[in-house]
Amino acid sequence: MKTETIEYKDGNVTLRGYLAYDDQRTGKRPGVLLMPEAFGLGANVKSRAEQLARLGYVALGGDPYGNGEELSDLPEAIKRATAILSDAGTARGRIRAALDKLSSLPQTDSARIAAIGYCMGGALSLEAVRDGAPLRGIVSFHGVLQTGIPAQAGKVKAKILVITGADDPFVPVAQVNAFADEMTKAGADWQIISYAGVKHSFTNPEAGSVGNPGIEYNKSADERSWKAMRNFFDEIFV
Amino acid sequence: MKTETIEYKDGNVTLRGYLAYDDQRTGKRPGVLLMPEAFGLGANVKSRAEQLARLGYVALGGDPYGNGEELSDLPEAIKRATAILSDAGTARGRIRAALDKLSSLPQTDSARIAAIGYCMGGALSLEAVRDGAPLRGIVSFHGVLQTGIPAQAGKVKAKILVITGADDPFVPVAQVNAFADEMTKAGADWQIISYAGVKHSFTNPEAGSVGNPGIEYNKSADERSWKAMRNFFDEIFV
Repeated sequence: MKTETIEYKDGNVTLRGYLAYDDQRTGKRPGVLLMPEAFGLGANVKSRAEQLARLGYVALGGDPYGNGEELSDLPEAIKRATAILSDAGTARGRIRAALDKLSSLPQTDSARIAAIGYCMGGALSLEAVRDGAPLRGIVSFHGVLQTGIPAQAGKVKAKILVITGADDPFVPVAQVNAFADEMTKAGADWQIISYAGVKHSFTNPEAGSVGNPGIEYNKSADERSWKAMRNFFDEIFV
Repeated sequence: MKTETIEYKDGNVTLRGYLAYDDQRTGKRPGVLLMPEAFGLGANVKSRAEQLARLGYVALGGDPYGNGEELSDLPEAIKRATAILSDAGTARGRIRAALDKLSSLPQTDSARIAAIGYCMGGALSLEAVRDGAPLRGIVSFHGVLQTGIPAQAGKVKAKILVITGADDPFVPVAQVNAFADEMTKAGADWQIISYAGVKHSFTNPEAGSVGNPGIEYNKSADERSWKAMRNFFDEIFV
């Protein structure tokens, strides 16, 4: 397997993504963009990119902030994430740049692209969906579901899989229900999976180090959601 | 594969279930009880039992009414289902009888039992859960989620997978949210999957013949939910 840091641009911002693919395979393959949590592109998403590369995908970990910046402080991460997410135009531009880079790679089948995202990355993936990005599908893991610019009927091309913890204080049930309404009105093909007793960042083994009672790794939910994502990919990449 | 009608009793009522298993296999295998829709034990559930038998399970289609009675009229089916479901004691007795029969079969590993149910059968499966039945898990497909006797903390042994259509008029979102609250308070391990634009009876290819606009087969939801069930079985039957 080959991994490398690759640069791409969103306007004046230089972004440093993490590319992983199986260089023993030939021919174009489906591409999967991974957008990370508010802490930036770190070890967990890089590891997931490598797992996806082993499954045969071209996997690109996207950089939300520029220069591959990673954050360690939760209030700072929330502040930086909010600065991007509070403006749908900025959010959409940031993920569009990453999708364009992934699609342009010689090993990527640009007709078969998906995005997955964690927390802020889930929100960014959903902004790409609302923006009408030509994606086969997106998966949001404990992603924020609200938006400043709701999806428009007929514009959504991607199938949507939202996976959320029932005890996630950042994604309360009212937000989940409002998202379902939004996407139903837009005519989207969505699925929502909710897990009992599961909190925010359930896919991140390091979640406990954040020191917030609403943020917690959950092995069962992590494994179930990864399997659900794989089934979803099997469906959308036929 | 071997299929046969087998009789069992709930009090004075003689029930006629449909048993399917692979008679080329030896040794005890996990058992799956299938409880049907309000129309009684018909072709769709018998076919599902055969599919589960091919997957290696001992599959028993349960009879909700006695003598294997099937109904064709929706108002009559709703009336008969309501008569069972409106009394939790009756409902629990009816499914307990089927689970006891399945567990007692020589080819069944009685420590590895699950139940799945469609519509009324989903409601019956959940009554078994609330009753503390020694199940590894249950799957409800477009099942009714409300009950007269909510689950008690510490009593639920089964893992729960609820799969529901977002446009199912028999299972509105308020009912789904109330169920989640009930089962969270009871400390249950539950998962809920909801599908956009999907109505009641989405697993039943004959659903259209009922002539009710809220009842409709959905091939995508049928296939997705079957796959989710198989993943769930892989998890609970380890």
